[in-house]
Amino acid sequence: MAGSTSTFATSFPNIPSIDGVEIFTAHSGMRYKKEDIFFAKLSEGTNVAGLLTKNSVPGEPILWCRNILKKGKARALVVNSGYANVCVGAAGKQTVDITVNKVQEMLKCKPEEIYIASTGIIGQPIKDDLLIEALDKKIEKSDWQRAAVAINTTDTFNKGVYLESTIGGQKVKIAGIIKGSGMIAPNMATMLGFLFTDAAISSAVLQALMNEVVEKTYHAITVDSDTSTSDAVLTFATGKAGNKEITDIHNPEFADFRAKFLQANLELAKLVVKDGEGITKFITIEVDGAASEKSAKTIALKIANSPLVKTAMAGSDPNWGRIAGAVGNAGEPVDKDKLSIWLGDVEVAENGALSDNYDEKKAQAYMKGTDIVIKVNVASGQGKAVVYTCDLSHGYISINADYRS
Amino acid sequence: MAGSTSTFATSFPNIPSIDGVEIFTAHSGMRYKKEDIFFAKLSEGTNVAGLLTKNSVPGEPILWCRNILKKGKARALVVNSGYANVCVGAAGKQTVDITVNKVQEMLKCKPEEIYIASTGIIGQPIKDDLLIEALDKKIEKSDWQRAAVAINTTDTFNKGVYLESTIGGQKVKIAGIIKGSGMIAPNMATMLGFLFTDAAISSAVLQALMNEVVEKTYHAITVDSDTSTSDAVLTFATGKAGNKEITDIHNPEFADFRAKFLQANLELAKLVVKDGEGITKFITIEVDGAASEKSAKTIALKIANSPLVKTAMAGSDPNWGRIAGAVGNAGEPVDKDKLSIWLGDVEVAENGALSDNYDEKKAQAYMKGTDIVIKVNVASGQGKAVVYTCDLSHGYISINADYRS
Repeated sequence: MAGSTSTFATSFPNIPSIDGVEIFTAHSGMRYKKEDIFFAKLSEGTNVAGLLTKNSVPGEPILWCRNILKKGKARALVVNSGYANVCVGAAGKQTVDITVNKVQEMLKCKPEEIYIASTGIIGQPIKDDLLIEALDKKIEKSDWQRAAVAINTTDTFNKGVYLESTIGGQKVKIAGIIKGSGMIAPNMATMLGFLFTDAAISSAVLQALMNEVVEKTYHAITVDSDTSTSDAVLTFATGKAGNKEITDIHNPEFADFRAKFLQANLELAKLVVKDGEGITKFITIEVDGAASEKSAKTIALKIANSPLVKTAMAGSDPNWGRIAGAVGNAGEPVDKDKLSIWLGDVEVAENGALSDNYDEKKAQAYMKGTDIVIKVNVASGQGKAVVYTCDLSHGYISINADYRS
Repeated sequence: MAGSTSTFATSFPNIPSIDGVEIFTAHSGMRYKKEDIFFAKLSEGTNVAGLLTKNSVPGEPILWCRNILKKGKARALVVNSGYANVCVGAAGKQTVDITVNKVQEMLKCKPEEIYIASTGIIGQPIKDDLLIEALDKKIEKSDWQRAAVAINTTDTFNKGVYLESTIGGQKVKIAGIIKGSGMIAPNMATMLGFLFTDAAISSAVLQALMNEVVEKTYHAITVDSDTSTSDAVLTFATGKAGNKEITDIHNPEFADFRAKFLQANLELAKLVVKDGEGITKFITIEVDGAASEKSAKTIALKIANSPLVKTAMAGSDPNWGRIAGAVGNAGEPVDKDKLSIWLGDVEVAENGALSDNYDEKKAQAYMKGTDIVIKVNVASGQGKAVVYTCDLSHGYISINADYRS
């Protein structure tokens, strides 16, 4: 919608249908020329778990989902793009109520089985009549790629993932779509992600699984340090594959699924960074030797969110002084006299000073690449963390100084 | 040094000499074409207090000053621009030692009376021979403006302040210079400030005074959320004015000085924002109705540091949705259904939604100005805070993607 396609765009994967999930999309006409409604019908018995924004000015759909998530059951998901249903006063709750009523009438299910997510502009209400009309008359059987398009706002490409696993000898599928480009930061910033599996997994295990992967995936990505009012990642498990329901996350038969689920979420999270507004470099930040894992994460995020580091990256500048400054800025234990910094395989700093092995030409050549790895060792313990981000370029300013999100 | 002169540049004030302070400057030739050494000789009995960066990768001058500040006495200040003396290994301490030895030889004072500050590139050592040669042979009697020039790096204009006060009927002077442009954020980011007064004030009161003003001045400004390794603000009181030494900050005769001292520091802090890299708008953020003062400050800084808010400002976009998002992002108590937002005198949001009185044309006209006030009331208590920042424009990217700081 805004800006040209990210140079990191990947083609949308081939995702088959998932037993128990029926996909519909529609063009409501409320704001975009593209399709803007994604509706998923879920078979009876579908379990659900989710991660919702912690922003203290949350959208109405977040409040709704937060409330029903405890029940752990789902029959429908309704997503609209264009309007976020945030800061619209009483109209916000009304939109949710009208939507729930409509879907309840369509599916004869319970209100607490109807999940809602909205993304787009803040402060202008959703056009309820167009939303209901879309659900009533316009939705049509659709596919995963159209669903991915329908949830996009400023995204420049469509993002999805598909993986297979086995549980107790039974093949199961994991499909996911995600939207999000700017404003991505820990705590689920303007990002909507939806995963679907035909595996039978209890909602308690599904939630434990999501809690398990979040730190290494959605909380390990950042584009511009901002978080948003509407973010949600939901996982639906229809149980149609035929495996015996998983009720213990430590069940050895579940090990492969656990690993694949992490992989699927990491792939989705990275796709969001790859659509970072104005991105010219995909940056991986690996911090080691920190006092704890948490400390490592704090340092890595401080580097990732530093405008000075991000602009140096945009300028292909091996400016390790800014990295050292950001490390210190995190306020975490650092042995400044043993600090080491690497850009890819080029050792830049060791023992807190320019490395004797430093090869400026090699560093500059490395920085011309588009995939940059910054490694930092703060020599204060065993804590490790990996964080993904992108650079801060003129493209980011152009997109955000003009576009009203 | 980088970028064209800020449109918010002000002319350097007329600052008279301060009894007990002798100013020298020099061109060492180590990095810049301009003068780059500021040396101040201070009369015997001068008291000193200071604020130093909390960055955990601090420069050697910071470590030196931190150590001697407890003594509270000063006879000299040596400042160089061009090299920060950070992350240079053993060379860092050596530079400090050589400098102290040289000044000690010149002034016959104690090592702990010699203050040092450095600013510039990280990771490359100061050229000691050129520094010593400058102190030895090149320094010449100078003036405040040349001193302001000598400490600058990427600054686009020279920054100073002068105010007068009375203590017990005795006229006293307050003079100050400061450098800093990008990388300004709470915790004293790449900023060097030096204040001088002829008032007689004990070092304990001087330190209490600095602690008192810091939250409303240097910790209330932010350009890009980064802090640096070398920041320091030092205040020197020579005691030559003839007032009876102030040993109690609550002494009523000291009230006017206290107010003027806050004013002087606020002026210096604002000058730094006015030289924010690529600045096109000076932005004041006033948060009211927060659970506490601290909470108000956290919210104000979250707004001030939000790249989405800052780019909207650059685009003259009255995008209050991004402001609401940033408010929520602070993680502080907010009554989202009573949240109100003003842009200058234009009420934008009330009761958590678009205001009935909102006049889009008026808001857009206001946003075209260069001095923007964002007012937010989060309806959760009595806490207030004011924070100053600038927008995030193409100019910022141009300066920081090219310049190696």
